[in-house]
Amino acid sequence: MKNLVLLGSTGSIGTNTLRLATDFPDRFRVVGLTAGSNSDKLLAQIRRFRPRCVALADAAAAERLRRRCGRQPDLRNLEIEILSGTEGLVRVATLEEADLVVSAIVGSAGLLPTFAAIGAKKTIALANKEPLVMAGSILQQEAQRQGITLLPVDSEHSAIFQSMSGQRRRDVRRLILTASGGPLLDLPIGKRRTIKPAQALKHPTWRMGSKISIDSATLMNKGLEVIEARWLFDIPPDRIDVVIHRQSIVHSMVEYLDGSVIAQMGVPDMRGPLGYALNYPERLPLGLPSLELTKVKALTFEPPDLKKFPCLGYAYEAIKIGGSLPAVLNAANEVAVRAYLEDRIGFLEIARLIRKTMDAHVPQAVKSLEDVLEADRWGREKAAKAVKEDGR
Amino acid sequence: MKNLVLLGSTGSIGTNTLRLATDFPDRFRVVGLTAGSNSDKLLAQIRRFRPRCVALADAAAAERLRRRCGRQPDLRNLEIEILSGTEGLVRVATLEEADLVVSAIVGSAGLLPTFAAIGAKKTIALANKEPLVMAGSILQQEAQRQGITLLPVDSEHSAIFQSMSGQRRRDVRRLILTASGGPLLDLPIGKRRTIKPAQALKHPTWRMGSKISIDSATLMNKGLEVIEARWLFDIPPDRIDVVIHRQSIVHSMVEYLDGSVIAQMGVPDMRGPLGYALNYPERLPLGLPSLELTKVKALTFEPPDLKKFPCLGYAYEAIKIGGSLPAVLNAANEVAVRAYLEDRIGFLEIARLIRKTMDAHVPQAVKSLEDVLEADRWGREKAAKAVKEDGR
Repeated sequence: MKNLVLLGSTGSIGTNTLRLATDFPDRFRVVGLTAGSNSDKLLAQIRRFRPRCVALADAAAAERLRRRCGRQPDLRNLEIEILSGTEGLVRVATLEEADLVVSAIVGSAGLLPTFAAIGAKKTIALANKEPLVMAGSILQQEAQRQGITLLPVDSEHSAIFQSMSGQRRRDVRRLILTASGGPLLDLPIGKRRTIKPAQALKHPTWRMGSKISIDSATLMNKGLEVIEARWLFDIPPDRIDVVIHRQSIVHSMVEYLDGSVIAQMGVPDMRGPLGYALNYPERLPLGLPSLELTKVKALTFEPPDLKKFPCLGYAYEAIKIGGSLPAVLNAANEVAVRAYLEDRIGFLEIARLIRKTMDAHVPQAVKSLEDVLEADRWGREKAAKAVKEDGR
Repeated sequence: MKNLVLLGSTGSIGTNTLRLATDFPDRFRVVGLTAGSNSDKLLAQIRRFRPRCVALADAAAAERLRRRCGRQPDLRNLEIEILSGTEGLVRVATLEEADLVVSAIVGSAGLLPTFAAIGAKKTIALANKEPLVMAGSILQQEAQRQGITLLPVDSEHSAIFQSMSGQRRRDVRRLILTASGGPLLDLPIGKRRTIKPAQALKHPTWRMGSKISIDSATLMNKGLEVIEARWLFDIPPDRIDVVIHRQSIVHSMVEYLDGSVIAQMGVPDMRGPLGYALNYPERLPLGLPSLELTKVKALTFEPPDLKKFPCLGYAYEAIKIGGSLPAVLNAANEVAVRAYLEDRIGFLEIARLIRKTMDAHVPQAVKSLEDVLEADRWGREKAAKAVKEDGR
């Protein structure tokens, strides 16, 4: 029996994790949940899974939840701690009884709780890629110091992790990340300016949250994954390639020095990589349909077009230069995506804003989380200012 | 440094093995070679690799080789044993100084030397599939008793072996063998009757010997591989599937119970799986080109047509019924392929002869190699008689 803590329980990964906890009640017990501000959904999860401790990032939402729990006859007598703010998230992330922490907060807000969970020697199922993007070297150093494993939940990184199973790290020649290309892959450059969020959110193969869906439309998501892979697998970025694979069947690949390529495939369903991370090293009978390649018929592969998708190139640039630049790239991207979703800037401005912010930044070495958070703050301010200057 | 013995050194696998031994002189030393009757080629190999002991199955060829070696100034003083017959092959297969025996004799002639090598606790790199087809249960029992590993050299089985690396055997749901479909895949049934050997030998993706090339044209090769996989990986045949994959890039796949599929890919070159088996568990820098999927563009998958390729169905039938039937299937196939290559029967008669021989056979349990050899003899006689009755 594994005791689970979910950081980001009301998002897409969070709800899929709870679905697995429901399907395998003899394997997983939910001891802690955290969310941003969705107290309604968190209340429903509390009722169902009865965790010992929960937290909401938003203090007002936490207060609301406390009052509502007090009024519910079935919850009044439950000894459940309801915490709030980053401090509350960190507290849940480090619960003594937790065996595995699912890090699934969206964006940079996951950094401190994830770092705290590593510090408390918890095994991490990592779905939240931004902490590694921002502070990969610091997180991996801490993970090594604590002797814990970061188990990837992203389908691509899970595929690489599975494709390296039983192989020697030093035999690896190249990682090949696949990208569906997102909903705008075939849209000519000239027509990208007027893309509305509703269209950009329509991911062809995966159902995900809105931030990651926009990141998929710009291919920034793949760029962030390149940076994530660099830290998870300790492979320099010039040995990490990206190929467009529209069908999202091959989740990623590893090439070895004898020319052999190991690939992991499957129907696109988050429960695959999630279940692998939760129950590692044993596989779960997830009840997912078999992959019938004769029905898929063809798997296609194309090189990515960096003119159409400049964000992918920016991410390579950021990780090659390193230091504070990846955190700045990530901060600018978060600001730009939110501005786009709120219709304050156009689609093409996302990349332009990131470029502008990166160009204005003088990369610094990062030695502590404080350095990283400083770069993050700097990037957000700079990008927010650019939104005001250039936005509608 | 590994000491190698090559059973079948003058064939396609044998020469590729020697190429690897040449490329990695600090890793492999050739201590024994055997061939059927090609004394010229064996002499050239002796001159190059200076093994301590060689054997030719054909006694007259061995005598010829002895005389020629005696006449060569550079070989006269080499202390090289030249043996002959099955006894000679067995002797080389069990050389005391051998660490790894490459079993690459074509067809059933490999059975006794391979069995002897297992009995002498040699690690086996198995390219010769017929021994497992004929006597899989007996060979695996002996391998387990001796505590040795059968390392597959067939690209398909190497792919499965690699795709199971680091995985738990009991998590395996299904093996998926890929088949290029051979040179006649798109030829309508009506036009198959008049196919000449020269056309049937033109394999689209792999360069191989003539027996295995014809087996690829009938898909019997894939059928034999299903039987081989059943024994190598201890998976029942109803959990082994075959898909047509024209590009021969995905060499085979393993599906796990969580729906995840691990595949091994690469450019079609025998040195890949061969190098993996020779140097297992370390990979060799083979200098093979990287697999560029964006140049391959698409990987396609189709179900096999059992009407066009009845031999595949016969092989499934043989392994499901078991006992002596797989040995009879294999014997009839060897006789039929030789008759076809000698233009004594037409292409469609290959399958018909096998069917006829199988129908005439009453399957028996096989408990010893003698039982297997008896089934083999029976199948050969029956099939040879059928060639005479139905042939040209």
